[in-house]
Amino acid sequence: MKRYAFVIHLKKEKYTQYKELHSKPWQNVLDILRMNNVKNYSIFYKDGNLFSYYEYYGNNHEKDMANIANNPTTQQWWNLTKPCQEPLSSAGKKEWWSSMLEVFHMD
Amino acid sequence: MKRYAFVIHLKKEKYTQYKELHSKPWQNVLDILRMNNVKNYSIFYKDGNLFSYYEYYGNNHEKDMANIANNPTTQQWWNLTKPCQEPLSSAGKKEWWSSMLEVFHMD
Repeated sequence: MKRYAFVIHLKKEKYTQYKELHSKPWQNVLDILRMNNVKNYSIFYKDGNLFSYYEYYGNNHEKDMANIANNPTTQQWWNLTKPCQEPLSSAGKKEWWSSMLEVFHMD
Repeated sequence: MKRYAFVIHLKKEKYTQYKELHSKPWQNVLDILRMNNVKNYSIFYKDGNLFSYYEYYGNNHEKDMANIANNPTTQQWWNLTKPCQEPLSSAGKKEWWSSMLEVFHMD
């Protein structure tokens, strides 16, 4: 298992909408994540930033992330969530959420 | 079990020191955390922010956090780590790490 964490800005005016969407996430979106080896996935909010954390149980993260991204249901979900978010100014051209570096872990 | 996440700034000039400290954390510090029902504890870094995530398995978070904070070994460790950190400008007077709000979770 490998842990992943990411950060992105949440637009202030979209806070309520984003929170409501994630209080009732689509079952199909969750199923696609689980089918692609993502577990124990949380998103936290503070002061305009979203932090996400999940545990990946597969052996090809890149392929599984592509499966998730290419799924039509995921894309419909992202059509709603992406306009709420704003990548960090340091994000790469093809990056949406910015990957964080693990500096500490204790089981 | 309940999940907790926090955010705090890391001073730019302290990045290397903080990373080195956390690559070899003191065994006693980890033992005190575990004895107080903290598990699966990670800290991630991006762009001057530290994001911490842990899972709490006890039934009195406030008391267990006080046990951790009052322990002399924890205090020695914090004497090294706290000068590296800077609370968010929105942090309360008695707050160090700022608590984040969970907006989403999938097991």
